[in-house]
Amino acid sequence: MFECPVPIGEYDRVTLAHGGGGRMTHRLISKIIAPLFDNEYLRQLHDGAILKLEGRVAVSTDSFVVSPVFFPGGNIGDLAVNGTVNDLAMCGARPRFITLSLIIEEGFLLKDLWEILTTVKVRADEAGVEVVSGDVKVVEKGKGDGIFINTTGIGEVLEGVDVSPSNVKVGDKVILSGHIGEHGIAIMSVREGLEFETPLKSDTMNLWPLVEAILKVGGPAIHMLRDATRGGVATVLNEVARSAGVGIVIEEERIPVREEVRGACEILGLDPLYVANEGRFLSFVSPDVADDVLNALRRVPGGEGAEVIGEVVEEHSGTVVMRTWMGGTRVVDMLSGEQLPRIC
Amino acid sequence: MFECPVPIGEYDRVTLAHGGGGRMTHRLISKIIAPLFDNEYLRQLHDGAILKLEGRVAVSTDSFVVSPVFFPGGNIGDLAVNGTVNDLAMCGARPRFITLSLIIEEGFLLKDLWEILTTVKVRADEAGVEVVSGDVKVVEKGKGDGIFINTTGIGEVLEGVDVSPSNVKVGDKVILSGHIGEHGIAIMSVREGLEFETPLKSDTMNLWPLVEAILKVGGPAIHMLRDATRGGVATVLNEVARSAGVGIVIEEERIPVREEVRGACEILGLDPLYVANEGRFLSFVSPDVADDVLNALRRVPGGEGAEVIGEVVEEHSGTVVMRTWMGGTRVVDMLSGEQLPRIC
Repeated sequence: MFECPVPIGEYDRVTLAHGGGGRMTHRLISKIIAPLFDNEYLRQLHDGAILKLEGRVAVSTDSFVVSPVFFPGGNIGDLAVNGTVNDLAMCGARPRFITLSLIIEEGFLLKDLWEILTTVKVRADEAGVEVVSGDVKVVEKGKGDGIFINTTGIGEVLEGVDVSPSNVKVGDKVILSGHIGEHGIAIMSVREGLEFETPLKSDTMNLWPLVEAILKVGGPAIHMLRDATRGGVATVLNEVARSAGVGIVIEEERIPVREEVRGACEILGLDPLYVANEGRFLSFVSPDVADDVLNALRRVPGGEGAEVIGEVVEEHSGTVVMRTWMGGTRVVDMLSGEQLPRIC
Repeated sequence: MFECPVPIGEYDRVTLAHGGGGRMTHRLISKIIAPLFDNEYLRQLHDGAILKLEGRVAVSTDSFVVSPVFFPGGNIGDLAVNGTVNDLAMCGARPRFITLSLIIEEGFLLKDLWEILTTVKVRADEAGVEVVSGDVKVVEKGKGDGIFINTTGIGEVLEGVDVSPSNVKVGDKVILSGHIGEHGIAIMSVREGLEFETPLKSDTMNLWPLVEAILKVGGPAIHMLRDATRGGVATVLNEVARSAGVGIVIEEERIPVREEVRGACEILGLDPLYVANEGRFLSFVSPDVADDVLNALRRVPGGEGAEVIGEVVEEHSGTVVMRTWMGGTRVVDMLSGEQLPRIC
């Protein structure tokens, strides 16, 4: 990966002085962070970055407090980039820039910080986004939990694209981009000390390549996009049903869930429909383009498991109903509490 | 102020479920937060907001972890808006939009959250910025400290304006916009239980009206702007001296410090030059416009205490020197540690 320009000892830790605004803060930023993300915007040395942007601009912010910070398949740095890039993608916007703000607990290992920062760098490069503004704060031991990261993303909405809950129509097909529940179960398996024969990894990924592919084949027939993070697929479907004032029917047997996730959910007493994903999204599309969209998704890495899982109906407006594999139906409601706190 | 659309009991508290992504999160956002900040962007109900922006766009991010959250003269909500708006102002950009991301500790009083949110609303309205994207996370008791807030600001750089460290020239006058140290001392006085006859209040304010006024009279002769937050005036001067490769000389007797701040600094063993401000900034301007800039500043509320405190020199490049009131000189260095942790 990247070598830190300043040697970091095995037990070197973040101190309050790294966030105090004096020489230690200056060094952390100018000797370690700025060189890693070096670009023309950071070189301006302003309090902010000055950007040129064209057309409609999408903006989204997200704070990440995932626990543990390192988990199977990634770390908080993966989520901080992919999560925000994905929120832009869900607006039909090509991700261009992100900001990066760290709240670090005193005593956090500097080598862990470096690993997270290099992860942010790798994911940002992959996604074609540049880190244009940043901030570092340090809180006393016991007043934080390792590291929290906020990223705010800025993207450019593709010309002619208009995805919005208000565009969802009766008859629209609901397409899910892949197997669900893997991020949530990867996190829970660490917390609960579960072990699997094939270790489950977080599904965290940049969804923009998938979104770009389907916008190309579907154009204005792509009505709405939403990634299924906290609260999982069930929560997103409920939000859409309410905000668009439509009913949604899904077919249980069409929902792709890996055997390991199903098993872990049984052990943990969770329903995969509510488990968080960090690399899966739902698209609501006109029925006439559904096959093309599905095929386009399946051709992009990370979209191989895509399925049409249901459709938008006129009945039971505001409610999501699932046809179970046994042939019955049940209402899929929003959960009231925290099924999985600090999953992202 | 604003009345909360949902009645809040005296002892109602934030729970993990408020950050879990289910119904409680949905309610907090849709019934309390969204109505307060209601605008055309939030009504899009996207994962992100879609904005129209013109010309050069300035972006800046900042996380606020101030302790205590409520202090004389304001609360974390004042800082979260003013701090980010000021970073945009320092780029010569008219603030337009902010994002708002909350990391709340389980058990935080809902009425305190409401008070902070309404403060954000009032300050945002005053500054003419709209909250266009947000996020709420909740961490377990003991894994945070009340509330941390990230704001990211987006502004439009005024036409013809070019403020940058690289524009600072030998001969430039250094103008300070007002009395220093009041924010830092207001915070420290609460932490240390100090009491003053006239209570000291934080200087937190929106600096854009001052910046707009001086850009109008100074135009391209305004070379650089920087607010003196963490690390205070001394740290900013050092950063400028280093990044512009110039020397800076300041006159001790010209630096406006109120008697109460001076007294508190003596008690606490602090140097006001290093104490954080949240409503003071330095401008580096051509000597020929210095008087006009000074007069313009003094005419705007919050700029009455402005003074020319020094100038940029060819000698001792990278170093800040102060002529003391006794007639000697001393080097004003960057501090290495945390003088005042969690001041913003």
